[in-house]
Amino acid sequence: MKERQLIDRIRRLSATSRNEAVVRGIGDDCAVLRLSVGSQLLVTTDLCVENVHFRRAWHPADSVGHKCLARGLSDIAAMGGKPLACFVSLGLPPGVPQKWIYGFLRGLLRLARRYNVQLAGGDLSSAQEIVADIVVTGEVPAGKAVLRSGARPDDRIYVTGRLGGSAAVLKQLIVGKRVRPAKSSPHFYPQPRVEVGRWLRQRGLATAMIDLSDGLSVDLAHICEESHVSARITQAQAPIATGSSLELALHGGEDYELLFTARKRAKVPGRIAGVPVTEIGVIQKPSNYSPAIHILGDNGKVRPLEQRGWQHFSNKS
Amino acid sequence: MKERQLIDRIRRLSATSRNEAVVRGIGDDCAVLRLSVGSQLLVTTDLCVENVHFRRAWHPADSVGHKCLARGLSDIAAMGGKPLACFVSLGLPPGVPQKWIYGFLRGLLRLARRYNVQLAGGDLSSAQEIVADIVVTGEVPAGKAVLRSGARPDDRIYVTGRLGGSAAVLKQLIVGKRVRPAKSSPHFYPQPRVEVGRWLRQRGLATAMIDLSDGLSVDLAHICEESHVSARITQAQAPIATGSSLELALHGGEDYELLFTARKRAKVPGRIAGVPVTEIGVIQKPSNYSPAIHILGDNGKVRPLEQRGWQHFSNKS
Repeated sequence: MKERQLIDRIRRLSATSRNEAVVRGIGDDCAVLRLSVGSQLLVTTDLCVENVHFRRAWHPADSVGHKCLARGLSDIAAMGGKPLACFVSLGLPPGVPQKWIYGFLRGLLRLARRYNVQLAGGDLSSAQEIVADIVVTGEVPAGKAVLRSGARPDDRIYVTGRLGGSAAVLKQLIVGKRVRPAKSSPHFYPQPRVEVGRWLRQRGLATAMIDLSDGLSVDLAHICEESHVSARITQAQAPIATGSSLELALHGGEDYELLFTARKRAKVPGRIAGVPVTEIGVIQKPSNYSPAIHILGDNGKVRPLEQRGWQHFSNKS
Repeated sequence: MKERQLIDRIRRLSATSRNEAVVRGIGDDCAVLRLSVGSQLLVTTDLCVENVHFRRAWHPADSVGHKCLARGLSDIAAMGGKPLACFVSLGLPPGVPQKWIYGFLRGLLRLARRYNVQLAGGDLSSAQEIVADIVVTGEVPAGKAVLRSGARPDDRIYVTGRLGGSAAVLKQLIVGKRVRPAKSSPHFYPQPRVEVGRWLRQRGLATAMIDLSDGLSVDLAHICEESHVSARITQAQAPIATGSSLELALHGGEDYELLFTARKRAKVPGRIAGVPVTEIGVIQKPSNYSPAIHILGDNGKVRPLEQRGWQHFSNKS
């Protein structure tokens, strides 16, 4: 198929998910967007590379499209923002079947429709492996974006959902097990916590927030670094996904849950927008040494928590 | 070098080019930008892939960084916009030297500084070949973006600069000639026409505009398609770059000049912001057949102009 035909087809498909912020979508040198009065713009980019972030043998094309967009939506969620439009740059090897490309777009656009996100542009090129760079733009009332830098000593630490579910599936795939890509699977079709992030921002409850893409130990360290604080989490409180383990809940990636902090006295509900929310620890004064995170074990002893983040499976296998 | 160190280094380097629109740059889940009151947002993405858009043996790293950003800035120029911030997603093969990465960033940031564009985010991954996806955001007063769709019959067609210069150099590289990558070379360091685009938009002179990235024959066809018109250009008027040819001026890509239309009676100066501007043809009523573009030859005869756009050199060699 020629590049021109593919672009025309993508342009028609993009009409299935509209957002009124998009004044001009695919078909000009730039997309044109209008923000709500008093809003600021959010922009996030995520690069997905074949055999690094996904494998064609393991991940159906629509799961890859879904996950690519979910990564970006999860970043918008972590700022408390409302997503508006996405852009996808696709590098495609000569041999990639047309069916794969449309499967990818189907998965991406199905998730886009759920959040009224319009596919407003992108680019195409040939490449040696499949490469998809996803840009998501969103908006947030001016000055209200929830940053990583707002955590203060004595704040409590919370996570949404259950952790380690995606990494547990990946572990099975790596050892050669066949795993059915169910639509409910947090590995194949993770659900970005857009509603939870907006809810927290609207109520001013979250002092700092990040999405769990690399793993709790690494992502909590980002909050500590940007907020100039340290943290202690309690092992017994970590919400471990069914079929997963403490190890994967602490260090496994791609959960796309939200990690946030709130004042000690803030009333954080146990469930927001249908998603369970669990208190897992406390922010402390800055520590002079690394690691800045400790974990209170089930044996009552406190030990340093290594920041053993997500290792892409290409490095493992 | 570890990913974390590279990100920290890029974050420090990004401080060398600031834009006051950027409220929060590298270091959070999203970048946060504020637009000027009454402005709309422009977004463009361009994917650059090794051995498709550049070759390490031919293009110094800083030329690759420059060209990647120039592609995006040229798209902002073609809307009459003011660039604000850029984002770069980099896929890097394990063996790529650190020196190459910093050369790339040096070229990109040197051009960014010229236009006060802040590097406000991006992503990193391993990949089989070097992949760089560049996003540029900009702004334009609401409703004033110059689209491809505004050309009307009897409008005159103009181009900035001289055409075919970049393709002429590429042709030499393909046949094995060594070409010194001079800073003045339109192939190695093309100059996006940001000032010209803004000047035309501020005066309301351009009825339609596009940047010449694929080649005059293809890019003028985009204007015709979006504006539902046809066009006739005059061979004798095409401004051919020194050392290039009519063929390359019509069909060679990567000139990054602006192609625009203006009303018949509009006073378009022969030089805008120091860049020569040449009238090359006229917009006509829609034609019922393809191609929609004709060229008046030096022999006085009109012939159809094939839309033989840019073929990336990977397909030629």
